[in-house]
Amino acid sequence: MLGSTHGTLTTDSRRARAIACGERSGPAVHGRPAQVGDLDVSGRPLHADVPDLDRFFRPRSIAVIGASDAEGRPNTGITRQLADWAERVGARLYPVHPSRPSVFGLPCSPSVADLPEQVDLAVVLVGDPLPVIEELAEAKARFAVVFASGFAETGPEGEAAQRRLAAAVERSGLRLLGPNTNLNAFERFRDDLEGPAIALITQSGHQGRPVFALQQLGIRLSHWAPTGNEADLETADFLSYFAEQPEVGAIACYLEGLKDGRSFLLAADRAARRGVPVVAVKVGRTETGARTAASHTGKLTGADAVVDAALLQYGVIRVDGLDELQDTAALLARARPPRADGVVVYSISGGTGAHVADLATEAGLRLPVLCEAKQAELHQWIPEYLSVANPVDNGGHPVGDRRGRKIIDALLDDPEVGVLVCPITGPFPPLSDRLVRDLVDAAEHTDKLVCVVWGSPVGTEPAYREVLLGSSRVATFRTVGNCLTAVRAYLAHHRFTTGYRSPFDEAPRTPSPSYRKAQALMQPGQQLSEHAAKQLLRAYGIRVPREQLVTSAAAAVRAAGLVGYPVVMKASGARIAHKTELGLVKIGLTSASQVRDAYRELTDIARYEDVSLDGVLVCQMVEQGVETVVGVTHDDLFGPTVTVGLGGVLVEVLRDTAVGVPPFGEERARDMLAGLRGRALLDGVRGRPPADLDALVEVVLRVQRMALELGDRLAELDINPLMVLPQGQGAVALDALAVCGR
Amino acid sequence: MLGSTHGTLTTDSRRARAIACGERSGPAVHGRPAQVGDLDVSGRPLHADVPDLDRFFRPRSIAVIGASDAEGRPNTGITRQLADWAERVGARLYPVHPSRPSVFGLPCSPSVADLPEQVDLAVVLVGDPLPVIEELAEAKARFAVVFASGFAETGPEGEAAQRRLAAAVERSGLRLLGPNTNLNAFERFRDDLEGPAIALITQSGHQGRPVFALQQLGIRLSHWAPTGNEADLETADFLSYFAEQPEVGAIACYLEGLKDGRSFLLAADRAARRGVPVVAVKVGRTETGARTAASHTGKLTGADAVVDAALLQYGVIRVDGLDELQDTAALLARARPPRADGVVVYSISGGTGAHVADLATEAGLRLPVLCEAKQAELHQWIPEYLSVANPVDNGGHPVGDRRGRKIIDALLDDPEVGVLVCPITGPFPPLSDRLVRDLVDAAEHTDKLVCVVWGSPVGTEPAYREVLLGSSRVATFRTVGNCLTAVRAYLAHHRFTTGYRSPFDEAPRTPSPSYRKAQALMQPGQQLSEHAAKQLLRAYGIRVPREQLVTSAAAAVRAAGLVGYPVVMKASGARIAHKTELGLVKIGLTSASQVRDAYRELTDIARYEDVSLDGVLVCQMVEQGVETVVGVTHDDLFGPTVTVGLGGVLVEVLRDTAVGVPPFGEERARDMLAGLRGRALLDGVRGRPPADLDALVEVVLRVQRMALELGDRLAELDINPLMVLPQGQGAVALDALAVCGR
Repeated sequence: MLGSTHGTLTTDSRRARAIACGERSGPAVHGRPAQVGDLDVSGRPLHADVPDLDRFFRPRSIAVIGASDAEGRPNTGITRQLADWAERVGARLYPVHPSRPSVFGLPCSPSVADLPEQVDLAVVLVGDPLPVIEELAEAKARFAVVFASGFAETGPEGEAAQRRLAAAVERSGLRLLGPNTNLNAFERFRDDLEGPAIALITQSGHQGRPVFALQQLGIRLSHWAPTGNEADLETADFLSYFAEQPEVGAIACYLEGLKDGRSFLLAADRAARRGVPVVAVKVGRTETGARTAASHTGKLTGADAVVDAALLQYGVIRVDGLDELQDTAALLARARPPRADGVVVYSISGGTGAHVADLATEAGLRLPVLCEAKQAELHQWIPEYLSVANPVDNGGHPVGDRRGRKIIDALLDDPEVGVLVCPITGPFPPLSDRLVRDLVDAAEHTDKLVCVVWGSPVGTEPAYREVLLGSSRVATFRTVGNCLTAVRAYLAHHRFTTGYRSPFDEAPRTPSPSYRKAQALMQPGQQLSEHAAKQLLRAYGIRVPREQLVTSAAAAVRAAGLVGYPVVMKASGARIAHKTELGLVKIGLTSASQVRDAYRELTDIARYEDVSLDGVLVCQMVEQGVETVVGVTHDDLFGPTVTVGLGGVLVEVLRDTAVGVPPFGEERARDMLAGLRGRALLDGVRGRPPADLDALVEVVLRVQRMALELGDRLAELDINPLMVLPQGQGAVALDALAVCGR
Repeated sequence: MLGSTHGTLTTDSRRARAIACGERSGPAVHGRPAQVGDLDVSGRPLHADVPDLDRFFRPRSIAVIGASDAEGRPNTGITRQLADWAERVGARLYPVHPSRPSVFGLPCSPSVADLPEQVDLAVVLVGDPLPVIEELAEAKARFAVVFASGFAETGPEGEAAQRRLAAAVERSGLRLLGPNTNLNAFERFRDDLEGPAIALITQSGHQGRPVFALQQLGIRLSHWAPTGNEADLETADFLSYFAEQPEVGAIACYLEGLKDGRSFLLAADRAARRGVPVVAVKVGRTETGARTAASHTGKLTGADAVVDAALLQYGVIRVDGLDELQDTAALLARARPPRADGVVVYSISGGTGAHVADLATEAGLRLPVLCEAKQAELHQWIPEYLSVANPVDNGGHPVGDRRGRKIIDALLDDPEVGVLVCPITGPFPPLSDRLVRDLVDAAEHTDKLVCVVWGSPVGTEPAYREVLLGSSRVATFRTVGNCLTAVRAYLAHHRFTTGYRSPFDEAPRTPSPSYRKAQALMQPGQQLSEHAAKQLLRAYGIRVPREQLVTSAAAAVRAAGLVGYPVVMKASGARIAHKTELGLVKIGLTSASQVRDAYRELTDIARYEDVSLDGVLVCQMVEQGVETVVGVTHDDLFGPTVTVGLGGVLVEVLRDTAVGVPPFGEERARDMLAGLRGRALLDGVRGRPPADLDALVEVVLRVQRMALELGDRLAELDINPLMVLPQGQGAVALDALAVCGR
């Protein structure tokens, strides 16, 4: 096992240890038993640690440390809300206060030690929670919630206090929510709503408020986890737990940062295996956002492109606005799996149809042209001069009578159609009331998705508030944009989870044979010479040009003969950057005399530029191909990541790169290439042959392996260029820069 | 005047004629008198034709042709609505029907000829409007509205019918709205709302409904023009007219296509001169949308990139959703000009602040860090541990007392701050009610913009519905996304109109001296040889390499001596494409013998490939520089357009180009370059010198001039590559393709 030899890749060691001790391993992972202690070659866990939070959300007994019923004290309102909540969930409530005999008529315990039973949940309202946590550990409480702020969100001192708190929690047997959290988990949820629910995770109470308010529109909410500073329980824990709950249809998250990238991905993987959609707002698109978010909850925000890639890989749907979070989570929680990916736009106005069809196509949805038989069927009820190809324009009148319902049923009956989108720009009761009733009724009789966009900005109309919101089968939106965002996410989610194969199942657990060779090449804290870096690549089976390192002109000529003309010659040394700019590269040398001259020139320049050489490389010249770059960098949140991009001007000017967050499989590597803007270069443009994509994918996967096995010891790798030859001919690393960690 | 020699550039001839005759020239253009008959060098008008529509929107007398009060007839409802409207605007109403003695108690005229007076407005409800239009012309009616459908939206037959209708209108003295329009202009507008209003133009009645409904939220609407098929009056006419009306604060448009690109741009220019914001949804982002829209109203949708460029150049704010149209138009109609472009985000939660600051920065808004003195001032009321740098987090409590208002005033008092954005994620009455009242009150006492995002999805809360919507000074939004879109548009609009200089004022009116030389080179219907195309460029002062066209090897050697070694040699002929791929280009020739060999090889290849040559070009070789492309294409809507892009892989693979719609000035040409993704290449990357941007701009402007002067006779021009040399050294057209129109 390599774990012990690694540096920051052991940030997960606590978790790994916890798993290894089996302390809190949760229920079985869907389809296979959790493998306790199962680590990948980087020493990081391969399975989510699912805490059993049943007694957190449904405790049998609750202690309120610092309870109050004194007028005007902030803790009084909190105590009252907790007492209400305890009654609703059927829990016994124990106020704890050193001097009050009773609170709201309930007898008070003077201290935690005096509690009449081992409580499931302790809510800590006192300013300094540390001693209380120690008392609660003694008293064998299962869960604690700490409201106090002033921890990691306030700077270095607070961070130290939070570390002390986390250490106390780790020593104890209890699990902690907080600090810097609030009452959201104990809100009054509506219990009259049915069907699949949204479970909510937020790192800011206010930011969950709009999703909570969805209950007023008839959308069920089952849980709310306000994770605060995450000294112990973190977003990933709730994500894993919620994914196991049968009533949860979708998980909505508002994230500012993550405590640990790996545990989040493992939790997302767990949700993906179970087919539970996760929709997330993640702050940190910009430097401003990242900085502000970090100062709010003291967590890492990660490089945004890496966050984007990580979420994409594990099927987490990222949205930007809380309104998109509401609408997308509500749709995904309640809609059944699609029967087809075709979308039909149906409206009572040709203008509306044209507009929505335009936006839907722009959003990447597929609007199949309805077949002729279907169009003929629709024209039984819709005048001949109106287009019913898709979008379907009924011209208005048919909506007012029995034709309206027949049209809707005919559309839903089309095997190409999985989703019907009906934009209603405004209330015109003679038509829209009946249309809405027909849609609601039709939705009851189909397993396809029916979406309505209620375009009136007012939203007090009965057709909207009573009929549409009264239906749990129609997905109702207020804007076309949010409807299309949600429908796209819905189709993408089901495409993703159908046949999802977890990359964690295929992640390497033991070092490859390459690893021993690579180890010998590492020089801690040093940048390797180009020659050494290429040997590292060769150790992992990545092709480099035929080349020899020489230290005399005569040896250079001999090497050129072996390598084969024409050759390239380059100065080689441990710390040479910008070789080309310095004139330390000579290309297209075709004769012994040119090689001799080049040797002299290179060593002269090196002397003048005061560059220390370990020799001169005489390399095979490779010209035909597409220049790409492949590299490794380390992300604060997710550890080593693999980047691939198109070389030359595309990477220099446009930063046209894609990133993969290990572990990822071949399919993701191919998706990364497919997502490059300059992708067409690889397919061959202007009569050039297509490049060897398979070879490029193979290099990306080998570099991933290297990154995982070497961990922090490979601080940075940059193969630039990797020349991808025409199909079937492979890829050759023409230059490489490798920096070893300390 | 060149107009008469041009082909499709005379599509505007009818309009030009109308202007020349002065028939309907409107009031003076802001700041200068309308110059009747003023045309640019392409023969197109330079000033909008502003129709006087006062008697359309406020007629003194109205005739309803086909009026009815019979139960169950569709025209009965229409007649009733028109009678109501006539009463509201104080107009006399005359029903016209051949057999009814009276309609709704009003005496009926049996025919148009029998009307008791010359009416201002005639609403034509009969199925075949053509004979009625002729009668109305006789009767000297000013305006007619035709509801009938079955015209250009239905196909070729309908198009022909619409042409007949348009011709009848043109012969008459009246102006027509329609056909295929509706009652929207005669809706019941709320007259109790004050302040600047939105005027609305739509090409689909339904699509205007959500903007009309804004009146229920307290936003004033002054006009609604449902333009239908635009056989006569078109979007541009209403745009120009609305821009002149003092009560109009912003114009909102829903556009599917345009009847004429030029008249739209002239109208937009007129609005820009007057500082009246125009916000538009324009369908046609995708092929699906364009096709569907075209079949809906029978208008051209234009190439979307060209539409985008045209709207941008004339300050029209393009949005995608009707919700964005509502929110952006409402803000722009009512907000005063900004005092600064800094945005401050103010919230009662650090999470909300971080999230909104992130999205605002991503949207391109500037969030200045508040100065230390301001932060100290804020910390009088906000606890020290909360960040008030911007976003400003008050932690909640200060909102509940007198500190809340002081904080808002202090923020609005900051000279860096032009806009305050306060996101309220949900109603928490003890805090949010007071916060909302304070914001509404503070907004009354400042000329800065105060925006509130009411995040609750419910929207029935009194703080929202009564307090926020009751204020005309606070701009209230339901989503952060729409708020940021609107604020960005608001700041961009004022940046754009401040010091707006109309490109029409600077458009060339008479041909340049280049024009005569260019004329002589044109070969109608032919593709010019490379040599001839380059002569065309030279005629317009665009530099080409030193080169000679030769027809013998000996002449080639002489030419190389004159041009200077090294040289490039290329086969030259009228219809050679893909020279490089065919091997018809030889570069880097350094000696007479190489030139002789190259001559033989080129002529051999041409013989084998059956390519007809007019000779071989011997050209100066230009290597140092950045490859760009500059070209001319013709757009259905906007006529000739100029494209500029980065050459090589950027144009081949990424289509990294920008388009300019003439007339445009130097500033726009610079903006086009600034908008290129690969822009950094021009600035110099990796130690390369910056390119001669001024020379590139000059070429773009000269190409524009050429496009305007030659009009349709230059069907296509493609300079590829235009090599832009290092700063101060100019730009050289290394190859050019020119196709002459017939």
